[in-house]
Amino acid sequence: MASASEDDLIATYFAPLAGQGSLALNDDAALLVEKPGFDTVLTCDALVAGVHFFADDPPDAIAAKALRVNLSDLAAKGATPAGFLVALALPRSDREWLAEFANGLRRDIDDYRFPLLGGDTVATPGPLMVSVTALGHVPAGRMVPRTGARSGDIIYVSGTIGDGALGLLARLGTLDLCADEESLIERYLRPQPRNALASALLEHANAAMDLSDGLIGDLRKMMRVSGVGAQIELVRVPLSPAAVAVIGREPSCWMRALTGGDDYEILTAVAPAQATAFEAAALACGVPVARIGVATTDLDVRFRDANGAAVEFERGSFSHF
Amino acid sequence: MASASEDDLIATYFAPLAGQGSLALNDDAALLVEKPGFDTVLTCDALVAGVHFFADDPPDAIAAKALRVNLSDLAAKGATPAGFLVALALPRSDREWLAEFANGLRRDIDDYRFPLLGGDTVATPGPLMVSVTALGHVPAGRMVPRTGARSGDIIYVSGTIGDGALGLLARLGTLDLCADEESLIERYLRPQPRNALASALLEHANAAMDLSDGLIGDLRKMMRVSGVGAQIELVRVPLSPAAVAVIGREPSCWMRALTGGDDYEILTAVAPAQATAFEAAALACGVPVARIGVATTDLDVRFRDANGAAVEFERGSFSHF
Repeated sequence: MASASEDDLIATYFAPLAGQGSLALNDDAALLVEKPGFDTVLTCDALVAGVHFFADDPPDAIAAKALRVNLSDLAAKGATPAGFLVALALPRSDREWLAEFANGLRRDIDDYRFPLLGGDTVATPGPLMVSVTALGHVPAGRMVPRTGARSGDIIYVSGTIGDGALGLLARLGTLDLCADEESLIERYLRPQPRNALASALLEHANAAMDLSDGLIGDLRKMMRVSGVGAQIELVRVPLSPAAVAVIGREPSCWMRALTGGDDYEILTAVAPAQATAFEAAALACGVPVARIGVATTDLDVRFRDANGAAVEFERGSFSHF
Repeated sequence: MASASEDDLIATYFAPLAGQGSLALNDDAALLVEKPGFDTVLTCDALVAGVHFFADDPPDAIAAKALRVNLSDLAAKGATPAGFLVALALPRSDREWLAEFANGLRRDIDDYRFPLLGGDTVATPGPLMVSVTALGHVPAGRMVPRTGARSGDIIYVSGTIGDGALGLLARLGTLDLCADEESLIERYLRPQPRNALASALLEHANAAMDLSDGLIGDLRKMMRVSGVGAQIELVRVPLSPAAVAVIGREPSCWMRALTGGDDYEILTAVAPAQATAFEAAALACGVPVARIGVATTDLDVRFRDANGAAVEFERGSFSHF
């Protein structure tokens, strides 16, 4: 097909998605009008084909992942989504692909009330790249930090851990799945960010972060920047039925579930006095949360298995470098 | 050299640049604290090696261009820079390159008081890509729109037009320059955004945009979205001495100067009653501005040469698609 100008691409695929503040994508810039009493939380995550997703993943799943990895960061900060800008580097202007990609954006724009504010579309001789900058609002001075865990805090994770990492192994063809385990691949393709939990975090959490690079590594990060350690009971790390089945067949997958990325669950530290209220609030939001350990005064992060034996992790975090 | 993890790269090269609100790049997100009485202006421009710059351009010039094309958008909206997030897709982690790139960022962070708030660093098997999302503040409700030109408004441009486009031709090797014309290449490599003009635009302009895709095409865009036309006197389009010299030798370069991109000057429409005050304010800011025409009721944008003869432009705007 003929190549299309950037203006045409924007008018056809992105202008119909543009929300309030985008100025219909007709200006140099977007406008986020003042919201008195609220700070703005900002996060930016870039995804590259062949690195963070597969070039032949469904275009709407690529769009969903690009938005949701950012929505997940907003959730962890207790922020309400306010909008996003997207920079899209396209190897070619394939109209069918773009229409499906735009559909993926549209669905999440509606589902998460997350308006498109602006962006940039450029040609690239390289792989597809999607970079999203997301904005959210929190009551002024109340953003949930990563650095706030205190000794004695109870450490929680939301949902289940390791599904995305096992889904990636299956997607790579190095793990065979039974039919009822296909949900793991879906979990890799389309993360489910925990924005429903944001208000409970805002009310009750001392610290939170979203899990993108693996539970073990991300735990160490949050404890280190908070200046505390932790004692973690690995048997309490929640696993999905599909993950349990896979690990039953392939015990080495347990390590992968704990250290692999792509969870997009929330890791949080809650003061003991707030724990009951936090659990009730999470229940009310419909987000399961599980206590996996406790923050400690000394700086080590220690892991114990079901028998109380120490477990060591050589490499806790996934890195693309 | 050995590859470095993303965390190491961030700690070494970017954390030292991090401004207030970045949370030392130690969190999931950055924080822009509430600024009562001000709206937030947002813009996003992505640059790809081999498309928007040359892979072997000096790393500090690539950093400068990535920031300045966004600063230029903020200037056109009358906004004061508030900070930026940068997504960087790196083909390899070359420490010397990164140190020079970080130096380029640092210089503009200081010169434009434009703090680094956050970002993302990813590996790519493709070309280097730098995507910047810039934030600025304007008094609430006062952003200078692209859509506000009215019939009778005087059309101005800042600085000189075409230097970047001619610099690109020279960089491509299709234009030979004399020694005293090397400034054109510098102008292509390191745009000079007109942030000094922002307050004058805020006070006096009905509409403004920054010139990135060529004067002729950008003029047509601003007039179209404003619902007016224009009569432009091409002889009044300001040219630098170097551009005049090049055009004297190669008359076809005039067309290139008018339609090529990379100006990063300001195009603005000012009501006749505000013109004198705008010119005085621009003078006070140290930014030269030139009247190049007038907005008209009918929707055509017409161009006249020095003899009053109509000039037609087949293709007014530069597009990478």
